[in-house]
Amino acid sequence: MKAVAEIQVVPIGVGVSVRAEVRRAQDLIRESGLIVQEHSFGTNVEGDIETILQVIARIHEVLHAEGTTRVTTAIKLGTRADKEPDLASKLR
Amino acid sequence: MKAVAEIQVVPIGVGVSVRAEVRRAQDLIRESGLIVQEHSFGTNVEGDIETILQVIARIHEVLHAEGTTRVTTAIKLGTRADKEPDLASKLR
Amino acid sequence: MKAVAEIQVVPIGVGVSVRAEVRRAQDLIRESGLIVQEHSFGTNVEGDIETILQVIARIHEVLHAEGTTRVTTAIKLGTRADKEPDLASKLR
Amino acid sequence: MKAVAEIQVVPIGVGVSVRAEVRRAQDLIRESGLIVQEHSFGTNVEGDIETILQVIARIHEVLHAEGTTRVTTAIKLGTRADKEPDLASKLR
Repeated sequence: MKAVAEIQVVPIGVGVSVRAEVRRAQDLIRESGLIVQEHSFGTNVEGDIETILQVIARIHEVLHAEGTTRVTTAIKLGTRADKEPDLASKLR
Repeated sequence: MKAVAEIQVVPIGVGVSVRAEVRRAQDLIRESGLIVQEHSFGTNVEGDIETILQVIARIHEVLHAEGTTRVTTAIKLGTRADKEPDLASKLR
Repeated sequence: MKAVAEIQVVPIGVGVSVRAEVRRAQDLIRESGLIVQEHSFGTNVEGDIETILQVIARIHEVLHAEGTTRVTTAIKLGTRADKEPDLASKLR
Repeated sequence: MKAVAEIQVVPIGVGVSVRAEVRRAQDLIRESGLIVQEHSFGTNVEGDIETILQVIARIHEVLHAEGTTRVTTAIKLGTRADKEPDLASKLR
Protein backbone atom coordinates (compact mmCIF):
# COMPACT_ATOMS: atom_id res chain seq x y z
CA MET A 1 0.00 0.00 0.00
CA LYS A 2 1.30 3.42 -0.93
CA ALA A 3 1.47 6.11 1.76
CA VAL A 4 2.72 9.60 2.49
CA ALA A 5 4.28 10.51 5.80
CA GLU A 6 6.08 13.17 7.76
CA ILE A 7 8.98 11.98 9.92
CA GLN A 8 10.54 14.27 12.53
CA VAL A 9 13.39 12.91 14.61
CA VAL A 10 14.05 14.40 18.07
CA PRO A 11 17.18 13.03 19.74
CA ILE A 12 17.13 13.53 23.52
CA GLY A 13 20.22 14.03 25.64
CA VAL A 14 22.63 15.04 22.87
CA GLY A 15 22.74 18.71 23.84
CA VAL A 16 21.16 21.89 22.52
CA SER A 17 22.19 21.16 18.92
CA VAL A 18 20.52 18.14 17.40
CA ARG A 19 21.79 18.80 13.89
CA ALA A 20 24.15 15.84 13.55
CA GLU A 21 21.47 13.31 14.55
CA VAL A 22 18.82 14.93 12.35
CA ARG A 23 21.19 14.84 9.36
CA ARG A 24 21.97 11.18 10.00
CA ALA A 25 18.26 10.41 9.99
CA GLN A 26 17.82 12.37 6.74
CA ASP A 27 20.62 10.32 5.17
CA LEU A 28 18.89 7.09 6.17
CA ILE A 29 15.57 8.32 4.75
CA ARG A 30 17.23 9.31 1.45
CA GLU A 31 18.95 5.91 1.20
CA SER A 32 15.56 4.19 1.53
CA GLY A 33 14.52 5.04 -2.02
CA LEU A 34 11.42 6.95 -0.86
CA ILE A 35 10.46 10.24 -2.51
CA VAL A 36 11.72 12.87 -0.04
CA GLN A 37 10.88 16.50 0.77
CA GLU A 38 12.87 18.01 3.61
CA HIS A 39 11.54 21.00 5.54
CA SER A 40 12.20 22.77 8.82
CA PHE A 41 10.02 20.49 10.95
CA GLY A 42 10.76 17.10 9.45
CA THR A 43 11.03 15.11 6.25
CA ASN A 44 7.98 14.32 4.13
CA VAL A 45 8.15 11.01 2.29
CA GLU A 46 6.11 9.14 -0.30
CA GLY A 47 6.30 5.44 -1.07
CA ASP A 48 5.39 2.00 0.16
CA ILE A 49 4.06 1.95 3.73
CA GLU A 50 6.36 -0.95 4.66
CA THR A 51 9.42 0.96 3.45
CA ILE A 52 8.34 4.00 5.45
CA LEU A 53 7.85 2.02 8.66
CA GLN A 54 11.13 0.15 8.14
CA VAL A 55 13.14 3.34 7.75
CA ILE A 56 11.61 4.71 10.97
CA ALA A 57 12.74 1.61 12.88
CA ARG A 58 16.15 1.84 11.22
CA ILE A 59 16.61 5.48 12.32
CA HIS A 60 16.07 4.44 15.94
CA GLU A 61 18.46 1.49 15.60
CA VAL A 62 21.24 3.40 13.86
CA LEU A 63 21.12 6.47 16.12
CA HIS A 64 21.29 4.24 19.21
CA ALA A 65 24.13 2.19 17.68
CA GLU A 66 26.00 5.42 17.02
CA GLY A 67 25.61 6.73 20.56
CA THR A 68 22.31 8.60 20.96
CA THR A 69 20.71 7.50 24.24
CA ARG A 70 17.09 8.52 23.59
CA VAL A 71 15.31 8.96 20.27
CA THR A 72 11.78 10.16 19.73
CA THR A 73 10.13 10.42 16.32
CA ALA A 74 6.92 12.27 15.55
CA ILE A 75 5.19 10.73 12.54
CA LYS A 76 2.10 11.57 10.51
CA LEU A 77 1.08 8.75 8.18
CA GLY A 78 -1.57 9.05 5.49
CA THR A 79 -3.19 6.53 3.16
CA ARG A 80 -6.27 6.60 0.97
CA ALA A 81 -8.34 3.98 -0.82
CA ASP A 82 -9.78 6.12 -3.63
CA LYS A 83 -6.45 6.93 -5.29
CA GLU A 84 -2.74 6.72 -4.59
CA PRO A 85 -1.67 9.40 -2.13
CA ASP A 86 1.21 11.65 -3.17
CA LEU A 87 3.02 14.60 -1.66
CA ALA A 88 2.63 16.86 -4.69
CA SER A 89 -1.16 16.84 -4.77
CA LYS A 90 -1.27 17.78 -1.09
CA LEU A 91 0.40 21.09 -2.00
CA ARG A 92 -2.03 22.09 -4.78
CA MET B 1 13.95 -3.35 20.43
CA LYS B 2 11.38 -2.23 22.98
CA ALA B 3 9.56 1.05 22.41
CA VAL B 4 6.74 3.21 23.70
CA ALA B 5 4.41 5.03 21.34
CA GLU B 6 1.28 7.11 21.08
CA ILE B 7 -1.05 6.24 18.20
CA GLN B 8 -3.90 8.58 17.22
CA VAL B 9 -6.09 7.58 14.29
CA VAL B 10 -7.92 10.29 12.34
CA PRO B 11 -10.29 8.93 9.68
CA ILE B 12 -11.09 11.50 6.99
CA GLY B 13 -14.36 11.66 5.10
CA VAL B 14 -16.47 9.57 7.50
CA GLY B 15 -18.43 12.51 8.89
CA VAL B 16 -18.33 14.57 12.06
CA SER B 17 -18.30 11.50 14.29
CA VAL B 18 -15.18 9.38 14.01
CA ARG B 19 -16.01 7.15 16.97
CA ALA B 20 -16.63 3.89 15.09
CA GLU B 21 -13.30 4.06 13.27
CA VAL B 22 -11.38 5.07 16.38
CA ARG B 23 -12.91 2.15 18.31
CA ARG B 24 -12.00 -0.25 15.51
CA ALA B 25 -8.41 0.96 15.68
CA GLN B 26 -8.39 0.56 19.48
CA ASP B 27 -9.62 -3.03 19.06
CA LEU B 28 -6.79 -3.78 16.64
CA ILE B 29 -4.24 -2.27 19.04
CA ARG B 30 -5.60 -4.32 21.96
CA GLU B 31 -5.47 -7.51 19.87
CA SER B 32 -1.77 -6.89 19.15
CA GLY B 33 -0.68 -7.92 22.64
CA LEU B 34 0.95 -4.56 23.35
CA ILE B 35 0.51 -2.91 26.76
CA VAL B 36 -2.19 -0.30 26.14
CA GLN B 37 -3.28 2.97 27.79
CA GLU B 38 -6.19 4.72 26.09
CA HIS B 39 -6.74 8.45 26.55
CA SER B 40 -8.68 11.24 24.89
CA PHE B 41 -6.07 12.00 22.21
CA GLY B 42 -4.91 8.53 21.27
CA THR B 43 -3.68 5.21 22.59
CA ASN B 44 -0.31 4.85 24.30
CA VAL B 45 1.39 1.50 23.79
CA GLU B 46 4.46 -0.30 25.07
CA GLY B 47 6.12 -3.29 23.46
CA ASP B 48 8.31 -4.44 20.60
CA ILE B 49 8.90 -1.74 17.99
CA GLU B 50 8.09 -4.18 15.15
CA THR B 51 4.74 -5.06 16.74
CA ILE B 52 3.94 -1.36 17.13
CA LEU B 53 4.76 -0.55 13.50
CA GLN B 54 2.85 -3.61 12.27
CA VAL B 55 -0.31 -2.66 14.13
CA ILE B 56 -0.14 0.83 12.64
CA ALA B 57 -0.01 -0.60 9.11
CA ARG B 58 -2.80 -3.01 10.00
CA ILE B 59 -5.06 -0.17 11.21
CA HIS B 60 -4.73 1.52 7.82
CA GLU B 61 -5.37 -1.75 5.95
CA VAL B 62 -8.40 -2.78 8.00
CA LEU B 63 -10.08 0.63 8.03
CA HIS B 64 -9.69 0.90 4.24
CA ALA B 65 -10.97 -2.68 3.77
CA GLU B 66 -14.00 -1.80 5.89
CA GLY B 67 -14.83 1.34 3.93
CA THR B 68 -12.90 4.33 5.26
CA THR B 69 -11.53 6.28 2.29
CA ARG B 70 -8.75 8.25 3.99
CA VAL B 71 -6.86 7.41 7.17
CA THR B 72 -4.25 9.53 8.90
CA THR B 73 -2.36 8.45 12.01
CA ALA B 74 -0.31 10.70 14.24
CA ILE B 75 2.39 8.72 16.01
CA LYS B 76 5.03 9.51 18.62
CA LEU B 77 7.61 6.74 18.97
CA GLY B 78 10.23 6.59 21.70
CA THR B 79 13.19 4.31 22.33
CA ARG B 80 16.20 4.50 24.60
CA ALA B 81 19.50 2.66 24.81
CA ASP B 82 20.25 3.11 28.53
CA LYS B 83 17.24 1.11 29.78
CA GLU B 84 13.98 -0.33 28.50
CA PRO B 85 11.40 2.40 27.95
CA ASP B 86 8.03 1.94 29.61
CA LEU B 87 4.82 3.93 29.88
CA ALA B 88 4.63 3.81 33.67
CA SER B 89 7.95 5.50 34.34
CA LYS B 90 7.00 8.37 32.00
CA LEU B 91 4.16 9.21 34.43
CA ARG B 92 6.26 9.35 37.58
CA MET C 1 9.40 36.03 22.24
CA LYS C 2 10.23 34.76 18.78
CA ALA C 3 9.22 31.22 17.86
CA VAL C 4 9.02 28.78 14.99
CA ALA C 5 6.06 26.48 14.52
CA GLU C 6 4.42 23.96 12.26
CA ILE C 7 0.64 24.27 11.91
CA GLN C 8 -1.39 21.49 10.30
CA VAL C 9 -5.15 21.95 10.04
CA VAL C 10 -7.38 18.87 9.85
CA PRO C 11 -11.06 19.70 9.29
CA ILE C 12 -13.36 16.83 10.34
CA GLY C 13 -16.70 16.10 8.73
CA VAL C 14 -16.17 18.01 5.48
CA GLY C 15 -15.71 14.95 3.30
CA VAL C 16 -12.75 13.16 1.76
CA SER C 17 -11.31 16.37 0.30
CA VAL C 18 -10.14 18.89 2.86
CA ARG C 19 -8.48 21.18 0.35
CA ALA C 20 -10.84 24.18 0.66
CA GLU C 21 -10.46 24.35 4.43
CA VAL C 22 -6.70 23.84 4.32
CA ARG C 23 -6.37 26.66 1.77
CA ARG C 24 -8.51 28.96 3.91
CA ALA C 25 -6.22 28.28 6.86
CA GLN C 26 -3.16 28.96 4.70
CA ASP C 27 -4.68 32.31 3.66
CA LEU C 28 -5.21 33.26 7.30
CA ILE C 29 -1.62 32.31 8.15
CA ARG C 30 -0.26 34.36 5.24
CA GLU C 31 -2.35 37.38 6.30
CA SER C 32 -0.82 37.22 9.79
CA GLY C 33 2.50 38.65 8.64
CA LEU C 34 4.46 35.60 9.82
CA ILE C 35 7.25 34.17 7.68
CA VAL C 36 5.62 31.18 5.99
CA GLN C 37 6.84 27.92 4.41
CA GLU C 38 4.09 25.66 3.11
CA HIS C 39 4.69 21.94 2.67
CA SER C 40 2.66 18.79 2.20
CA PHE C 41 2.00 18.18 5.92
CA GLY C 42 1.38 21.72 7.16
CA THR C 43 2.67 25.25 7.17
CA ASN C 44 5.87 26.22 8.96
CA VAL C 45 5.92 29.72 10.39
CA GLU C 46 8.40 32.04 12.06
CA GLY C 47 7.59 35.13 14.12
CA ASP C 48 6.27 36.33 17.44
CA ILE C 49 4.82 33.55 19.60
CA GLU C 50 1.70 35.63 20.35
CA THR C 51 1.03 36.14 16.63
CA ILE C 52 1.44 32.41 16.04
CA LEU C 53 -0.98 31.46 18.82
CA GLN C 54 -3.48 34.12 17.72
CA VAL C 55 -3.55 32.87 14.14
CA ILE C 56 -4.19 29.33 15.37
CA ALA C 57 -7.21 30.51 17.38
CA ARG C 58 -8.36 32.56 14.38
CA ILE C 59 -8.22 29.53 12.06
CA HIS C 60 -10.59 27.65 14.38
CA GLU C 61 -12.94 30.65 14.67
CA VAL C 62 -13.07 31.41 10.94
CA LEU C 63 -13.48 27.79 9.80
CA HIS C 64 -16.35 27.30 12.26
CA ALA C 65 -17.94 30.62 11.20
CA GLU C 66 -17.73 29.48 7.59
CA GLY C 67 -19.36 26.12 8.23
CA THR C 68 -16.79 23.53 9.30
CA THR C 69 -18.20 21.57 12.25
CA ARG C 70 -14.99 20.15 13.72
CA VAL C 71 -11.47 21.48 13.42
CA THR C 72 -8.29 19.90 14.74
CA THR C 73 -4.85 21.45 14.46
CA ALA C 74 -1.57 19.68 15.07
CA ILE C 75 1.09 22.15 16.16
CA LYS C 76 4.80 21.94 16.91
CA LEU C 77 6.11 25.07 18.63
CA GLY C 78 9.79 25.78 19.22
CA THR C 79 11.62 28.51 21.14
CA ARG C 80 15.16 28.93 22.35
CA ALA C 81 16.89 31.22 24.79
CA ASP C 82 20.41 31.18 23.35
CA LYS C 83 19.51 32.82 20.01
CA GLU C 84 16.46 33.68 17.96
CA PRO C 85 14.98 30.58 16.34
CA ASP C 86 14.43 30.67 12.59
CA LEU C 87 13.15 28.27 9.98
CA ALA C 88 16.14 28.65 7.67
CA SER C 89 18.78 27.49 10.15
CA LYS C 90 16.73 24.36 10.89
CA LEU C 91 17.29 23.29 7.28
CA ARG C 92 21.06 23.71 7.23
CA MET D 1 -14.61 29.22 22.56
CA LYS D 2 -14.18 25.94 24.41
CA ALA D 3 -11.49 23.54 23.22
CA VAL D 4 -9.72 20.32 24.09
CA ALA D 5 -6.00 19.90 23.58
CA GLU D 6 -3.03 17.67 24.16
CA ILE D 7 0.17 19.41 25.24
CA GLN D 8 3.50 17.58 25.22
CA VAL D 9 6.60 19.46 26.29
CA VAL D 10 10.00 18.34 25.00
CA PRO D 11 12.91 20.27 26.53
CA ILE D 12 16.07 20.07 24.39
CA GLY D 13 19.57 20.19 25.77
CA VAL D 14 18.79 19.31 29.38
CA GLY D 15 20.14 15.78 29.22
CA VAL D 16 18.67 12.31 28.89
CA SER D 17 16.16 12.90 31.71
CA VAL D 18 13.55 15.54 30.98
CA ARG D 19 11.45 14.81 34.05
CA ALA D 20 12.06 18.05 35.98
CA GLU D 21 11.04 20.22 33.03
CA VAL D 22 8.01 18.07 32.19
CA ARG D 23 6.84 18.27 35.82
CA ARG D 24 7.28 22.05 35.84
CA ALA D 25 5.12 22.28 32.72
CA GLN D 26 2.48 20.04 34.33
CA ASP D 27 2.43 22.33 37.37
CA LEU D 28 1.85 25.36 35.15
CA ILE D 29 -0.97 23.57 33.32
CA ARG D 30 -2.63 22.58 36.62
CA GLU D 31 -2.37 26.16 37.91
CA SER D 32 -4.22 27.40 34.80
CA GLY D 33 -7.57 26.14 36.01
CA LEU D 34 -8.06 23.92 32.95
CA ILE D 35 -9.48 20.41 33.34
CA VAL D 36 -6.39 18.19 33.17
CA GLN D 37 -5.68 14.54 32.30
CA GLU D 38 -2.02 13.55 32.46
CA HIS D 39 -0.75 10.56 30.50
CA SER D 40 2.57 9.14 29.34
CA PHE D 41 2.80 11.24 26.15
CA GLY D 42 1.51 14.59 27.37
CA THR D 43 -1.27 16.33 29.24
CA ASN D 44 -4.80 16.54 27.86
CA VAL D 45 -6.70 19.68 28.79
CA GLU D 46 -10.20 21.03 28.42
CA GLY D 47 -11.26 24.67 28.74
CA ASP D 48 -11.23 28.03 27.04
CA ILE D 49 -9.03 28.15 23.94
CA GLU D 50 -7.41 31.41 25.08
CA THR D 51 -6.46 29.87 28.43
CA ILE D 52 -4.99 26.85 26.65
CA LEU D 53 -2.89 28.99 24.28
CA GLN D 54 -1.76 31.26 27.13
CA VAL D 55 -0.54 28.36 29.24
CA ILE D 56 1.45 27.05 26.28
CA ALA D 57 3.21 30.40 25.88
CA ARG D 58 3.76 30.54 29.66
CA ILE D 59 5.42 27.09 29.68
CA HIS D 60 7.97 28.30 27.12
CA GLU D 61 8.58 31.56 29.06
CA VAL D 62 8.96 29.92 32.46
CA LEU D 63 11.18 27.05 31.32
CA HIS D 64 13.50 29.50 29.54
CA ALA D 65 13.52 31.81 32.60
CA GLU D 66 14.46 28.83 34.76
CA GLY D 67 17.33 27.76 32.52
CA THR D 68 16.11 25.47 29.73
CA THR D 69 17.78 26.57 26.49
CA ARG D 70 15.40 25.01 23.95
CA VAL D 71 11.76 24.07 24.39
CA THR D 72 9.52 22.33 21.89
CA THR D 73 5.85 21.60 22.47
CA ALA D 74 3.70 19.27 20.40
CA ILE D 75 0.07 20.31 20.57
CA LYS D 76 -3.19 18.88 19.23
CA LEU D 77 -6.06 21.37 19.49
CA GLY D 78 -9.71 20.48 18.84
CA THR D 79 -12.86 22.58 18.64
CA ARG D 80 -16.35 21.90 17.35
CA ALA D 81 -19.33 24.07 16.47
CA ASP D 82 -22.12 21.55 17.01
CA LYS D 83 -21.54 21.08 20.75
CA GLU D 84 -18.94 21.86 23.40
CA PRO D 85 -15.95 19.55 23.08
CA ASP D 86 -14.90 17.66 26.20
CA LEU D 87 -12.26 15.12 27.06
CA ALA D 88 -14.65 12.62 28.62
CA SER D 89 -16.79 12.10 25.53
CA LYS D 90 -13.69 11.42 23.44
CA LEU D 91 -13.08 8.33 25.59
CA ARG D 92 -16.53 6.80 25.23
